[in-house]
Amino acid sequence: MTTDFARPYQKPGERLEDLGLDGLYILQDPDAFRFNIDSVLLAWYAAPAVHRKTRTLDIGTGTGVLPLLLYGRTHTQSIDAVEIQPAMADMASRSVAMNHLEGVIHIHEGDIRNEPGTALVRGAYDVVVTNPPYMPKGKGGVNPDRALALARHEITCTLEDVAAAAQALLKDRGRLFMVHRAERLVDLCAVLRAHQLEVKRVRGVQPFPDKPANQILLQAVKRGHPGAIVEPPLSIYQSPGVYSAEINAIYGTDGPTSKNTY
Amino acid sequence: MTTDFARPYQKPGERLEDLGLDGLYILQDPDAFRFNIDSVLLAWYAAPAVHRKTRTLDIGTGTGVLPLLLYGRTHTQSIDAVEIQPAMADMASRSVAMNHLEGVIHIHEGDIRNEPGTALVRGAYDVVVTNPPYMPKGKGGVNPDRALALARHEITCTLEDVAAAAQALLKDRGRLFMVHRAERLVDLCAVLRAHQLEVKRVRGVQPFPDKPANQILLQAVKRGHPGAIVEPPLSIYQSPGVYSAEINAIYGTDGPTSKNTY
Repeated sequence: MTTDFARPYQKPGERLEDLGLDGLYILQDPDAFRFNIDSVLLAWYAAPAVHRKTRTLDIGTGTGVLPLLLYGRTHTQSIDAVEIQPAMADMASRSVAMNHLEGVIHIHEGDIRNEPGTALVRGAYDVVVTNPPYMPKGKGGVNPDRALALARHEITCTLEDVAAAAQALLKDRGRLFMVHRAERLVDLCAVLRAHQLEVKRVRGVQPFPDKPANQILLQAVKRGHPGAIVEPPLSIYQSPGVYSAEINAIYGTDGPTSKNTY
Repeated sequence: MTTDFARPYQKPGERLEDLGLDGLYILQDPDAFRFNIDSVLLAWYAAPAVHRKTRTLDIGTGTGVLPLLLYGRTHTQSIDAVEIQPAMADMASRSVAMNHLEGVIHIHEGDIRNEPGTALVRGAYDVVVTNPPYMPKGKGGVNPDRALALARHEITCTLEDVAAAAQALLKDRGRLFMVHRAERLVDLCAVLRAHQLEVKRVRGVQPFPDKPANQILLQAVKRGHPGAIVEPPLSIYQSPGVYSAEINAIYGTDGPTSKNTY
């Protein structure tokens, strides 16, 4: 494959990756946070709620993978995405440009803890998607690389920060789709409810059919009524080394080349 | 089978049922609330935490089925159980006597909203089990039969009431085991946390492997640290009419004669 098309957008050391979806490509820095299966699953989970005219926002977009995958699945016409790290926001913007999606995906460098300072409009979004930092600040080893640490730990962005931003930016009845660590289930339910975001669907993501969930996918509705559906879990593997039928369907036969897994 | 042994305990119209466990029997009123698979699953889920000297309390015992099943599984030596409805408490007491377990299982007629008025001692219990009313007051059809309504609807006993009682009656680090409607997941997480009861394990109970959970089993710890395990779900059936291997193992080959299911 020729990758000449990427040359105007690619910086030294950045890797070009085929998203295996709709002819889309993404730039990634091998030394920084790279997207993984969580983003692929979240895009798939949120896609049925995203239509052509849906206004969608990605909080903490990183490489911009979620907007690209959501566009690839839905051909929606307006996705905003905010990223606090300038270098990541720049790389995401170049990935968008490389795919000629500047008219669809708008990358905003900014801090959602100070969203009036960004170009984001309160109460404007039908859908918010987010794959936020998983680890509570001070828990687990914080990566010495600051970019990795910011993406993985709640340093610049706690669950409360994400919930407060989603509450402010979603329309009433707007939907929040999130992927997070399963062990945070109670935090997620309680913190989101405290921000008028009622969890309506929860789906565990298990490595195997008989193992506890590592991650959970969830959908919450702003000012939604209490009452959740606990969906059957999604298993990554059906047996060691063999992806489940559902994972193969999600990735498709020409799915992302890197099924980075747990 | 001769049922002469039951005659001194049985009132007209009451049905004698073989619990299929440890030679235990239970009295039930066919017109009132009868135990179902939820109690069988909850006893099984809680049993590993119940040892010979564990002090266990059942909140809202109804027919007394949970104490009987827990005793049958563990041979623990002290289970208190509280029931607000005098007729149910009386029937439960007679079931206990019929099984010659008066020295082990103590049925208290009383209202857990006023637990100082009962014989229950605050901070005394290692384990609390409860299969509380599922339906929020005013939701769903309230059964015209008052006994059934009290057992099914949060009329005398809301989730908050149960949580407050468990908080008061458990020791620090004591464990609460509960079965409830899956749709109440967020309520459960939030209300229990508000009462210092941190959900540590959640397990969906699904009718089939590919269907959402109807019920959830959960374990919370008083003053426990945040962090939950989202366990793989338990399926009742593996295919229509065929119980799953796990359900057959829970019931055992000589399990309860009535697998009343969903």
